[in-house]
Amino acid sequence: MKYVFGADIGGTTVKLGFFDENGELLDKWEIPTDKTDHGKNIVSDVCESIQAKINDKGVAKEDVIGVGVGAPGAVDADGVMTGGAVNLGWDVFNLRTSMEEKLGGIKVIAGNDANVAAYGEMWKGGGRGYKNVVAVTLGTGVGGGVIIGGKLITGATGAAGEIGHIRVDDVETEKCNCGHSGCLEQFASATGIARLARKRLAADDKTSSLRNAEVLDAKAVFDAVKAGDPVAVEIAKEFGRYLGKGLAVVADVVNPEIFVIGGGVSKAGDILLSFVEPEFVNFVFPPCKGAKFALATLGNDAGIYGCAGMVIEDK
Amino acid sequence: MKYVFGADIGGTTVKLGFFDENGELLDKWEIPTDKTDHGKNIVSDVCESIQAKINDKGVAKEDVIGVGVGAPGAVDADGVMTGGAVNLGWDVFNLRTSMEEKLGGIKVIAGNDANVAAYGEMWKGGGRGYKNVVAVTLGTGVGGGVIIGGKLITGATGAAGEIGHIRVDDVETEKCNCGHSGCLEQFASATGIARLARKRLAADDKTSSLRNAEVLDAKAVFDAVKAGDPVAVEIAKEFGRYLGKGLAVVADVVNPEIFVIGGGVSKAGDILLSFVEPEFVNFVFPPCKGAKFALATLGNDAGIYGCAGMVIEDK
Repeated sequence: MKYVFGADIGGTTVKLGFFDENGELLDKWEIPTDKTDHGKNIVSDVCESIQAKINDKGVAKEDVIGVGVGAPGAVDADGVMTGGAVNLGWDVFNLRTSMEEKLGGIKVIAGNDANVAAYGEMWKGGGRGYKNVVAVTLGTGVGGGVIIGGKLITGATGAAGEIGHIRVDDVETEKCNCGHSGCLEQFASATGIARLARKRLAADDKTSSLRNAEVLDAKAVFDAVKAGDPVAVEIAKEFGRYLGKGLAVVADVVNPEIFVIGGGVSKAGDILLSFVEPEFVNFVFPPCKGAKFALATLGNDAGIYGCAGMVIEDK
Repeated sequence: MKYVFGADIGGTTVKLGFFDENGELLDKWEIPTDKTDHGKNIVSDVCESIQAKINDKGVAKEDVIGVGVGAPGAVDADGVMTGGAVNLGWDVFNLRTSMEEKLGGIKVIAGNDANVAAYGEMWKGGGRGYKNVVAVTLGTGVGGGVIIGGKLITGATGAAGEIGHIRVDDVETEKCNCGHSGCLEQFASATGIARLARKRLAADDKTSSLRNAEVLDAKAVFDAVKAGDPVAVEIAKEFGRYLGKGLAVVADVVNPEIFVIGGGVSKAGDILLSFVEPEFVNFVFPPCKGAKFALATLGNDAGIYGCAGMVIEDK
């Protein structure tokens, strides 16, 4: 039997996974992300942790097919962090070759964390069985990954799939983090939904259970939708209209078989899709309207699965 | 030496090309497109014309690597016209296998005409040297083709790259051919530019040479721009804003290295790009803003080049 490692580097922890060559997750663990000194210890920490696991499991180095790694920033096809990684303090460097050196020549494949998680969902999650998949992550922001013919699209500078910054509104004046305004992320992320909720509640004094919510967040909105609160339903409809409109544009460009929706907001469950799908159909070019919608199923493990999958499918 | 044929099937004529294995165009000719009887003779006519050329040139059949064919409709990865071809009267059928049968087993690769022309521009035209290219055709409508890592994206139903139906305006009420409104095609195609011009001239009675134009079309608008007509410049700016906004969304999704702009409208030349590029930068997610812009160079031969290129690069 041969083996593969996955390392999903986040701003707080690095999630690691040890897989067999069939993609079975045999062990997973975490180490803290050391952001001191511009994150200069992170790569060594990850490589040492993998090396320790190799020793611990008594695996021969030649039986390790490779290591997949995901990081929070644009990564090009060679493994270069083309814009560094602001959250980790990293400047521009080649993540792939740095890790290969530290791992004594074990093959490394590197990708953007959102893209890698997308790959994981295509390989073993909500998009299993499909080869043309767009994965959408609704978290603090809106991220995405585009997979065509079973391969991740990275693009010229590793920024493909950054669908959170598609413009979906021409009248919005508040600024997005990217400097523009009217970005999908401002309406469909966890923070975006909370913003829509605050604005809706401030617009009039219509009765709503949301007015008593301890925290007015995406979870509170969808819980209230499930309880039949009409103001919450209005907010969810607005969210659905923006997300449906944004994903329609994505479908016009790449015509996927399926959208897989993940991230914290997707914990609302199938009811979330019921607000998005009809709006998607309203906006999309008709020949692309057959795209299916599914929820992500791997949760926080999507990244390590994707890391392992990139190595196994590439071998 | 080995050889390749390209056949670009249009609504009026079929353009054919005879290439050597290095992609040198050795001969080109046209036959009329026979749309009688739901276009049932077209495939036979094309195959007979190719067979006649094989005989004529004294080429051994085993020296023909294959035939590439482009047709005006969605074509999936297997060569099936998934929605038929309305302009030709075709119903759903497998174009690739039909041609292979009629050509006695010569390999055929089939694609959508706009996608195939995009491939041609990447291979031998304005996008030469790049592998991540979005080709945009500004003709009667707005078409496109997306090439990633040197491969055409077809999508789930062969409709990838249909960027003319990206929604770029929320207030437009006139209907697009697709049934929606606010599509890029309504503002950036030849007909779209003429529409913008008519609306602008009707808005007030500001002096403009366009008021005396014999035909108020895209050519008249850009000719007047070159002559310094301020109303024409306003119209071109509006066109540029819509096209820049639409292409920004495309870049957010696939992050190309270069956009190659072709079709009748692109005959205006570099001045056209000067209206599009600054608006693109205004709208695009900043990490994707480095995409270059170039004009298509192959004109009406883009299709036959793309047909040949798909066969040669796939061999």
